Amino acid sequence: MRLDELAAALGASLEGDGAVEIKGAASLESAGPAELTFVRDAKHVSRLSGCQAGAVVAPAGMETDHPVIRAENPFHLFSLALEILYPQARPAAGTHPSAWVGEGVELGDGVSIGPQASVEAGTRIGKNSVIKAGARIGAGCVIGQDCHIHENAVIMDRVSMGDRCIIHPLCVVGSDGFGLVRFEDGSSRKILHIGDVRLEDDVEIGACSSVDRAMLGSTLIKRGVKIDNQVQVGHNVVIGENTVIAGCAGIGGSTIVGKNVMIGGASAISDHVQLADGVMMAGMTGVYTSLKEPGVYAGPMAMKNMEFKRFMLSGRRLEKLEARIKKIEKEKE
Amino acid sequence: MRLDELAAALGASLEGDGAVEIKGAASLESAGPAELTFVRDAKHVSRLSGCQAGAVVAPAGMETDHPVIRAENPFHLFSLALEILYPQARPAAGTHPSAWVGEGVELGDGVSIGPQASVEAGTRIGKNSVIKAGARIGAGCVIGQDCHIHENAVIMDRVSMGDRCIIHPLCVVGSDGFGLVRFEDGSSRKILHIGDVRLEDDVEIGACSSVDRAMLGSTLIKRGVKIDNQVQVGHNVVIGENTVIAGCAGIGGSTIVGKNVMIGGASAISDHVQLADGVMMAGMTGVYTSLKEPGVYAGPMAMKNMEFKRFMLSGRRLEKLEARIKKIEKEKE
Amino acid sequence: MRLDELAAALGASLEGDGAVEIKGAASLESAGPAELTFVRDAKHVSRLSGCQAGAVVAPAGMETDHPVIRAENPFHLFSLALEILYPQARPAAGTHPSAWVGEGVELGDGVSIGPQASVEAGTRIGKNSVIKAGARIGAGCVIGQDCHIHENAVIMDRVSMGDRCIIHPLCVVGSDGFGLVRFEDGSSRKILHIGDVRLEDDVEIGACSSVDRAMLGSTLIKRGVKIDNQVQVGHNVVIGENTVIAGCAGIGGSTIVGKNVMIGGASAISDHVQLADGVMMAGMTGVYTSLKEPGVYAGPMAMKNMEFKRFMLSGRRLEKLEARIKKIEKEKE
Repeated sequence: MRLDELAAALGASLEGDGAVEIKGAASLESAGPAELTFVRDAKHVSRLSGCQAGAVVAPAGMETDHPVIRAENPFHLFSLALEILYPQARPAAGTHPSAWVGEGVELGDGVSIGPQASVEAGTRIGKNSVIKAGARIGAGCVIGQDCHIHENAVIMDRVSMGDRCIIHPLCVVGSDGFGLVRFEDGSSRKILHIGDVRLEDDVEIGACSSVDRAMLGSTLIKRGVKIDNQVQVGHNVVIGENTVIAGCAGIGGSTIVGKNVMIGGASAISDHVQLADGVMMAGMTGVYTSLKEPGVYAGPMAMKNMEFKRFMLSGRRLEKLEARIKKIEKEKE
Repeated sequence: MRLDELAAALGASLEGDGAVEIKGAASLESAGPAELTFVRDAKHVSRLSGCQAGAVVAPAGMETDHPVIRAENPFHLFSLALEILYPQARPAAGTHPSAWVGEGVELGDGVSIGPQASVEAGTRIGKNSVIKAGARIGAGCVIGQDCHIHENAVIMDRVSMGDRCIIHPLCVVGSDGFGLVRFEDGSSRKILHIGDVRLEDDVEIGACSSVDRAMLGSTLIKRGVKIDNQVQVGHNVVIGENTVIAGCAGIGGSTIVGKNVMIGGASAISDHVQLADGVMMAGMTGVYTSLKEPGVYAGPMAMKNMEFKRFMLSGRRLEKLEARIKKIEKEKE
Repeated sequence: MRLDELAAALGASLEGDGAVEIKGAASLESAGPAELTFVRDAKHVSRLSGCQAGAVVAPAGMETDHPVIRAENPFHLFSLALEILYPQARPAAGTHPSAWVGEGVELGDGVSIGPQASVEAGTRIGKNSVIKAGARIGAGCVIGQDCHIHENAVIMDRVSMGDRCIIHPLCVVGSDGFGLVRFEDGSSRKILHIGDVRLEDDVEIGACSSVDRAMLGSTLIKRGVKIDNQVQVGHNVVIGENTVIAGCAGIGGSTIVGKNVMIGGASAISDHVQLADGVMMAGMTGVYTSLKEPGVYAGPMAMKNMEFKRFMLSGRRLEKLEARIKKIEKEKE
């Protein structure tokens, strides 16, 4: 499409040649003359030199020879442009002949159920939701509208989710929690998990992640939470609104995570602790006790970030101390 | 059911009004007048005030106004009560018409094979075992009685398991180990894994976990071992009886884990090491060398727990030392 | 087969009784009289005493009473012997009647598609490649020759891979990256991922691992890369030739990993960093900034290995310093 048409569709202002034909989008380094790119903010301006893109999304005031679409938040506007330039085909509505749907299942208008997927008895799926090939939906679930359950993902019995939720491939929601009664001889006995999992609207859970159902009550993931791949969420966990969890993190059972929390990749959080609203954890942070104040935490025992960095320099500080002591000792001889 | 009927079914003694109608179970905080709850031990007694539960399971001697079922181990008795209050429907016996079963497969009485599951040639499945939708069972496997293989889980060829094993959704048992011959030019060549995996009775493996088959011989998980979600068990690992492994942990190839070991979440254990019986590891513990004595270990290089906590305070200890040295230096001026 | 026939098939020299019948292979400790075993190098020679194996693969010069096949690299020769002794049955060519194949799919000669697998429209699969039960292949993919896509694995749309690639069970290639536009109110919006994933020849990816597609451009895994189980590879990552990644590791988005890199198990690497060719990371290493020089790294903030070990001894060094300062303070009194 023409650049001026694209800018108009985005409701954004254009500077430069609106007649440029834009066929796709690419990064600053690889974009060609028929592609749109973007500069996130002023500090990346130097990356524009040599850029071959046909047009660029850039913040107001950034000078460039390229035709430019102005945006307060270039990354956001660029992401909207992607949706225009690459319209995604919706899977055809209807149930694939190789899929299996149990008794009493209610499917909203436009629901698509892919090859070899299955939906157990009594589940309701809201309109325009998509169940991809090989996905398993248990009995008695309630799935909202415009949800996407991707390939070979598993939604266990009685899980509910709001609208616009995305469950990526090979993710499971509603598996039994790790609840055992242990006896003195070391043996243990599994505890029945009669609870469920509730996902509110706009929750996204990554590939190969797992969210356990509650033993009693609900594991609750609130509106707007985004979870990356390979993440484990234990039974009875509560995660507050808009919290973001990066890949390979793990959250122990009954832990309460506040809202707007950011959990770095490969972090691990014990069971039965609380994270205050606004806590930010670096990657590989270990949390054994509650973090009651917002702030940035890091390290294997969740120190405040600067304290952790200072701690990691202990070796060098020790060497300096050793030298100073040696000097004192020498002078006394 | 009436509370006195429930107590009788549990073989437990009841104090208070046995006519209370109990319809379900819930936590101390959320239980209502028709629900049973429990107090784990004396230190939680204060949580009983304000509790709306119709009845409570509590240890002998704990005072309460609620009708109470007495138990030496309240959590255990409560878990038995859950099984009475929430009888789990068994999937219908038989092979779902959309499932596929290969030649020479032997199915015991009462075996249930769900939608779009598959069982390859020559496998035997013991009576009353359940294979859920989309699960894959390889060729030449032996599955015991009363096992549950959950949705989209994968059991590879020649895996054997005892009775009452549970394999959670999206878990794989018997994948090839990470065995490579590396050459001087950096390239490498995969080694055929002719070994297998053997699970003894009462083994449970969590969602999204993986247990690799042995290169030669067997990867062996002994009776009563419980493994949580997102756990990796390498090839030729041996795990002793009743060991418990929390989520996101990883165990390198050929490592021997003793019995009654507890491995905290997100811990990582190198290949070719040994963990003594009774070792307990905190979450996020890193093990590079064998732990030959039982005890509690923690930290990125598996120190004894108190040593690790002291180590993490090094920064503050350093500051104090710096101050003392400064004082000495000053006095000499 | 006779040992002399086996040696001849391997093109290796034999010492001792070539008439021994060899039916299988096993470890030094468990091999019986009809089994072959191996000694990796001279330092393991003592493990030969008491060994019951019918024959052994050993380096030149190592003395043994066993019939012996000599090899410069015994482990390599032994792995070749495994392939002779345990010929693997190829799955029958053709598409299983319960599988589903979309429009315009091109299948090379000898391709095998297993029970309940699915292949979406427009995908090409090269000759002799094997798609196992329940695997999902998206639309517009290009799969090379002699590839193995294992049970319930997922290859998303437009992924390409070279020849001889192996994708283990429950692994996903091409899931959306974790790309969000975050707004000031804490909410966020998913970014369309229009990029793809390209695997070159001889790439192997382990069970329950996930490789995200690029937002723009490609996530690229080069020739000969071997990835273990439970590994997360973020969007737009590039991994250089012959790099080896052990289990439970995670790599953040847009990170560039060099060639011949070895990443230890459970390591975590931030997004947007670079690892030089030849970097070697111990297990559980945390990388927050680029590692620009080859060498061995370890610890939660990726120190050079010796520096990390010294760091972990800080506690003991501190104690010694405390004692020395105390002595100085005492003497001044």
